[in-house]
Amino acid sequence: MNKYIIGIDLGGRSIKFGLFTEDGDLINKSNIITRTDEDGKHILPDLVEHLHKIFTKYNLTKESLIGIGLGVPGPILNKRVVVRAVNLGWEGNVHAADYIEEHTGIRVLVENDANVAALGEMWKGAAEGYQDVVMVTLGTGVGGGIISNGKLISGSTGSGGEIGHMPFLQNPIERTCGCGGNRCLEQVASATGIEYIAQDYLFRYDIESKLKEYDGLTAKDIFECAKEKDELALKITEEYFNHLGRGLAIVGSIVDPAIFVIGGGVSHAGDFLIDNLRESYKKYAFSVIRNSQFVQATLGNDAGIYGAAKLIIN
Amino acid sequence: MNKYIIGIDLGGRSIKFGLFTEDGDLINKSNIITRTDEDGKHILPDLVEHLHKIFTKYNLTKESLIGIGLGVPGPILNKRVVVRAVNLGWEGNVHAADYIEEHTGIRVLVENDANVAALGEMWKGAAEGYQDVVMVTLGTGVGGGIISNGKLISGSTGSGGEIGHMPFLQNPIERTCGCGGNRCLEQVASATGIEYIAQDYLFRYDIESKLKEYDGLTAKDIFECAKEKDELALKITEEYFNHLGRGLAIVGSIVDPAIFVIGGGVSHAGDFLIDNLRESYKKYAFSVIRNSQFVQATLGNDAGIYGAAKLIIN
Repeated sequence: MNKYIIGIDLGGRSIKFGLFTEDGDLINKSNIITRTDEDGKHILPDLVEHLHKIFTKYNLTKESLIGIGLGVPGPILNKRVVVRAVNLGWEGNVHAADYIEEHTGIRVLVENDANVAALGEMWKGAAEGYQDVVMVTLGTGVGGGIISNGKLISGSTGSGGEIGHMPFLQNPIERTCGCGGNRCLEQVASATGIEYIAQDYLFRYDIESKLKEYDGLTAKDIFECAKEKDELALKITEEYFNHLGRGLAIVGSIVDPAIFVIGGGVSHAGDFLIDNLRESYKKYAFSVIRNSQFVQATLGNDAGIYGAAKLIIN
Repeated sequence: MNKYIIGIDLGGRSIKFGLFTEDGDLINKSNIITRTDEDGKHILPDLVEHLHKIFTKYNLTKESLIGIGLGVPGPILNKRVVVRAVNLGWEGNVHAADYIEEHTGIRVLVENDANVAALGEMWKGAAEGYQDVVMVTLGTGVGGGIISNGKLISGSTGSGGEIGHMPFLQNPIERTCGCGGNRCLEQVASATGIEYIAQDYLFRYDIESKLKEYDGLTAKDIFECAKEKDELALKITEEYFNHLGRGLAIVGSIVDPAIFVIGGGVSHAGDFLIDNLRESYKKYAFSVIRNSQFVQATLGNDAGIYGAAKLIIN
């Protein structure tokens, strides 16, 4: 009999469901909207209701379905309890695994969404075949998921891999991070971070630049101009790569990954990003860890459902 | 039948052997000198010869001896191969596990000495009962061993937990680290690091201080004077704790340990060190990881033999 797994990526806007074979072939994808009103109390019932639709459509039984994995944007304890998830309206402990198990009879495991994405890329994405992986998601924030010897570093409070909030800057900056800090890697290495660096450089340097023509400059614009060798854009990306390269060299010295997988919106800058980041990393990393690979993530928005499914057989 | 394990701590000066029950009771300790001449070629034969003496004395057989664990000062691959160990005269790959297995018929596992010490403290020392542990050894260098969910983070090149060489300083310093870097945590947070900070402060500040009476100031002297509230010594230790606290907050954001165990010569400064370090850590760490425990190591020089033995049953 064929065996199946369901991977669920529970985000602030939608809940994505993937039905997989145990070998990781994706059979079906579906979505429902995340209802975050009333402290997110509808989320788990909605999720369970949709699960039953999938069970029915594919004739899934307790014998054929190995388990259900769930990725959630927040710290998770013991792969079962969501400590909090601000984007879902969840405060206090939400016993997500217990709830879904009780209403389906199927085994459930829960993990942080960034950790789950790393697992997805290791299973069927850019890090397939590797055992020591750091996934870095460069979006409006900087997220991280770390796998050592094939296992996720979840951490004692569910905050393993929170590389965006490492107190990375020796001298604090004026802006305050979402976490309350002012030395965070996220503050200088996220999409928002590079926009702040750009504002600063535009003010400081009176040189010709295409960047000055933009109204509401984005990370994408800055990378586009840098690729076209705009002098000011190159100065900005150089500072950006110095920060991110040093930040990942710090992570490298602690967990010594074979490969860094770069995902999130900023990663669409492609080879320009990956090549410059690799060079910057080499400049800061100590000799033995200097040859870590750098690659762009390949699963995109599907990393979450793949990784959630992989939780069950990892 | 009672089952036994042998844990070996292979250092540059001596090789320490511990015979343990599988519950971790230490039955016998013994030492031999490490002969590092001729590229350390005598080390493994000497080690095996002493093992046979232990086998004979305690009537150990393949049935009663579960395995032999070995801690080595260098990066280790796959718990078997020593990539290099400068202090032993070993360059190139030394197949230590293969050699000892061939000459004893007993299963052997090898790990880095700092990692093994962390495992020892988790098994029978200051971190007993914890699953997520960071051990920091503050001596002439800064060593680290990291355990996540009960398992060592060995890393893809055997360099996991090399926290002393994280490129921690945003602005490089003039001195060069043993690793070739000039931004390393080790450069400001080791015993040598605080001595350098002290030299700098003694030169900069023209204030009365007992420190000026010392000829060849050591880390121990500086901590002693700080405990006695010497103003200059307190300024020096404040800078030291700021560096080390921020460094460990960075480690915390990456691996989220429940407990930090502080060992090595500097740890003899005791509660003064632990309490100040905890305060500094809290200042830099983001909220969810702020309650990590800080404790002094308890196994001292025996951490290596305990941890090496624990390798076998971990």
